[in-house]
Amino acid sequence: MSDIRIAVLGAGGRMGRALIRTIEATNGAVLAGASDRAGSEVIGQDAGVLAGARAANVKIVDDVAAAFAQADVAIDFTAPGALDAHLAAARATKTALVIGTTGLQAPQESAIAAFAKDFPVIRSANYSVGVTLLRALVRQAATVLGPDYDAEIVEMHHNAKVDAPSGTALALGRAVAAGRNVQLENVWVKERDGHTGAREPGTIGFATLRGGDVAGDHTVYFAAAGERLELGHRATSREVFATGAVRAALWVAKQKPGLYDMDDVLGLT
Amino acid sequence: MSDIRIAVLGAGGRMGRALIRTIEATNGAVLAGASDRAGSEVIGQDAGVLAGARAANVKIVDDVAAAFAQADVAIDFTAPGALDAHLAAARATKTALVIGTTGLQAPQESAIAAFAKDFPVIRSANYSVGVTLLRALVRQAATVLGPDYDAEIVEMHHNAKVDAPSGTALALGRAVAAGRNVQLENVWVKERDGHTGAREPGTIGFATLRGGDVAGDHTVYFAAAGERLELGHRATSREVFATGAVRAALWVAKQKPGLYDMDDVLGLT
Amino acid sequence: MSDIRIAVLGAGGRMGRALIRTIEATNGAVLAGASDRAGSEVIGQDAGVLAGARAANVKIVDDVAAAFAQADVAIDFTAPGALDAHLAAARATKTALVIGTTGLQAPQESAIAAFAKDFPVIRSANYSVGVTLLRALVRQAATVLGPDYDAEIVEMHHNAKVDAPSGTALALGRAVAAGRNVQLENVWVKERDGHTGAREPGTIGFATLRGGDVAGDHTVYFAAAGERLELGHRATSREVFATGAVRAALWVAKQKPGLYDMDDVLGLT
Amino acid sequence: MSDIRIAVLGAGGRMGRALIRTIEATNGAVLAGASDRAGSEVIGQDAGVLAGARAANVKIVDDVAAAFAQADVAIDFTAPGALDAHLAAARATKTALVIGTTGLQAPQESAIAAFAKDFPVIRSANYSVGVTLLRALVRQAATVLGPDYDAEIVEMHHNAKVDAPSGTALALGRAVAAGRNVQLENVWVKERDGHTGAREPGTIGFATLRGGDVAGDHTVYFAAAGERLELGHRATSREVFATGAVRAALWVAKQKPGLYDMDDVLGLT
Repeated sequence: MSDIRIAVLGAGGRMGRALIRTIEATNGAVLAGASDRAGSEVIGQDAGVLAGARAANVKIVDDVAAAFAQADVAIDFTAPGALDAHLAAARATKTALVIGTTGLQAPQESAIAAFAKDFPVIRSANYSVGVTLLRALVRQAATVLGPDYDAEIVEMHHNAKVDAPSGTALALGRAVAAGRNVQLENVWVKERDGHTGAREPGTIGFATLRGGDVAGDHTVYFAAAGERLELGHRATSREVFATGAVRAALWVAKQKPGLYDMDDVLGLT
Repeated sequence: MSDIRIAVLGAGGRMGRALIRTIEATNGAVLAGASDRAGSEVIGQDAGVLAGARAANVKIVDDVAAAFAQADVAIDFTAPGALDAHLAAARATKTALVIGTTGLQAPQESAIAAFAKDFPVIRSANYSVGVTLLRALVRQAATVLGPDYDAEIVEMHHNAKVDAPSGTALALGRAVAAGRNVQLENVWVKERDGHTGAREPGTIGFATLRGGDVAGDHTVYFAAAGERLELGHRATSREVFATGAVRAALWVAKQKPGLYDMDDVLGLT
Repeated sequence: MSDIRIAVLGAGGRMGRALIRTIEATNGAVLAGASDRAGSEVIGQDAGVLAGARAANVKIVDDVAAAFAQADVAIDFTAPGALDAHLAAARATKTALVIGTTGLQAPQESAIAAFAKDFPVIRSANYSVGVTLLRALVRQAATVLGPDYDAEIVEMHHNAKVDAPSGTALALGRAVAAGRNVQLENVWVKERDGHTGAREPGTIGFATLRGGDVAGDHTVYFAAAGERLELGHRATSREVFATGAVRAALWVAKQKPGLYDMDDVLGLT
Repeated sequence: MSDIRIAVLGAGGRMGRALIRTIEATNGAVLAGASDRAGSEVIGQDAGVLAGARAANVKIVDDVAAAFAQADVAIDFTAPGALDAHLAAARATKTALVIGTTGLQAPQESAIAAFAKDFPVIRSANYSVGVTLLRALVRQAATVLGPDYDAEIVEMHHNAKVDAPSGTALALGRAVAAGRNVQLENVWVKERDGHTGAREPGTIGFATLRGGDVAGDHTVYFAAAGERLELGHRATSREVFATGAVRAALWVAKQKPGLYDMDDVLGLT
């Protein structure tokens, strides 16, 4: 089977470089194009060398359609303002898309939906394969163990994060609740300080740590007499999102037109 | 519904005492007999007092058939050499069995299979509910992630354990292998010392820690660029094995003849 | 050098049995006496057999002075109401004491102080060697790393615990604060929920987990860009307090009269 | 005070790029030179742009002496074969050195010692501030706890690492041994497979995990009955070694001639 040819948008940014290194290291994937914004210092450079990998014989260009010309699929982790141009270029070149850009508005959501009628596209707010899988495992564990096993969720993120618990921690809490057929909002405990009284059976506890530049650690505990199940995930760098996005690209390049997410890629639905 | 009557073999040992305390604390279970080897200091003592629970009005005897006389099911975590006598007594008294004895030889395996044609029996190398579930989750994770995620298994047990890796660690390794459709024995790496060379893709690594009185910690890592899934279990006392064994006893006492394992008890098959 | 001879009070209780097993397993220590309250079922039994160890040739008696007669030191983890009688017996038999009884009142505190003028005695609310040491290490780490390393403390205890954070977690927080020459109460953060804003430099965060029968896990993180120091302790059973108390007994038996604590035993002062 | 001017060797490699980014982000440090091997694709490029930072106005050159010409101190994390040339260039340009190259042979060790008679030089196998502190804490813990606490060391590194245990794990083992006044080589256990027998008291165990792109996790356990002290460190990126090396560079540039290590930089000696 021939390799899937992937184009990378924003090739000079941190995420773009991570994607290029990941493509180079992935069997079945080959870098087929790379673009960055007009005027960037990286235009004209070899995408592989710039990313800290070997030479890729792919120059970074500022013409998106040219970057897509030889590609089966393109990966876009750039900015919302560029999305319309990227969709147009993908349509013109019949290129599938993996979209990781966040902060999209309703008109852009509609544009993606329209594109998905004719081409396969994946969209997710979190391309981590591990987190996607962890949610499924946590739900299954909650179903088997039942509420007699106390469920607690602890997360740690970098000291610049401004909200708590993390969105991923809440998603894991929803997975526990779904496994027990309850609503998270009815059973969560998000603060403990002073005289709390004994733990109420059936609740789901959250604990939050902040420090350093931790990319994201999450652990779900299921604790009973004499034993604890500990289901956790550590993200140590943006490579994790690159890995998931490349996996998504390999998968989506072979799909029928439609809008997919990471559960589809992993076959968890 | 009347209580399930349970006999405990090896009642004077650490595991036997834990079983007796667990039976006393479990709704629907009652201690109906207790034995230990002839000549033991514990013969004739009250099983409950010896276990650190209240008096059970059950004297520890050295006659296994007598211990089984009033029981629906017996729990055996003793030594391989005693198995034949225990099977004979169970047959004579029509008693179901929960067998946790390890290190059995082929003739003893055959004897259990023959017994299971006429009576219900559960056999497992690890009666922990959490470990049984963990094996299922690990297998699923291995299937979804594939061999690009490096699988590593680390375990810690007390300093008196004489073999490595633990039976549970090997069972978890088999779960990874099954999820990938490979044979564990073809891909395991059980030692690393000196110049090992780079990790070979697709292998499954084992690492062993020994110390203190750790009842049993196991973690399976699935590691890729920028992320790690960590699926683990901690047993903090042998109570956890007692809890699972008593749960198994309550379940097996109501089954048809046959050979079952903990997956059956938890409905994971 | 001859063995230190130790008497155990409350020999039939969970903690008493743990102490007896620990003494039997400790080089340089020998069980020299054992008592329990008059009327207990365990009076007259062999203390070793009852504890799940080998026969100790020490019968459990209800006369404290008799239990102390052959002992260099006695360990008391019983109830406040028995303390006066224990001090009197210790004075009569010239026996050193290790006191782990909690909930003492002022008159009993005075009685211990008076006893300590003539005999060596150790008193601590937590005999864990590991926790005592951890506090010292955490303080040293905080001094070397300074407030640029974000300090966070997470603890997990069983689901019956009614207060948060644990006393040990707060003591660890005080160790961080002492290492930085600040007051814990000025810098602690004990709750995070919703829009918290970025972590304020120099604060010390606490996070609390509750579940199962966890005896006590504590971890202190010091996190900076690209690294984390993790200093933790896990207690899995009351054996840990028995180990510390026996170590304290071996130490105090050789001291001059005085009132000591675990920092003295470990040479951390 | 004027900035310390730092040259980076191997500027096109992963570690070189991390060093350049760290220097750019560190107050009091400025990039003053950058070199890579003759023939590399990165020669002639701007070191800052290549590293993913802003333009540094420093071209990468293949003449080491030219790279050192404007520098107070140079950081070398390259290969043993280049060391002699680097020492000669440093001597010619009166440049202090921070050496992180591993795998040096005896003649190279001697050459460093000779260089250190005339210039300040730091040498360490691990520039992490956290690991340096951890070694000191582990040694202290080993002294206080003694050999009755079973010491075990587990480490995890990326799947390209070719030796086991890691140099840092061995250094931690030496810290345990030093705390007990024994030689590590007499007590280490580096493999466990099959029938190992019970753990021998006083030994120091090592366990090795390999997977993903883990930058380096190390944990030292001290385990006894009912408790475990867990002293650990996680490096999540090579940034941490870059941070420590730049801290070392700022420190060594102001020292008298001599051979120093990270303990000196942190004031732990």
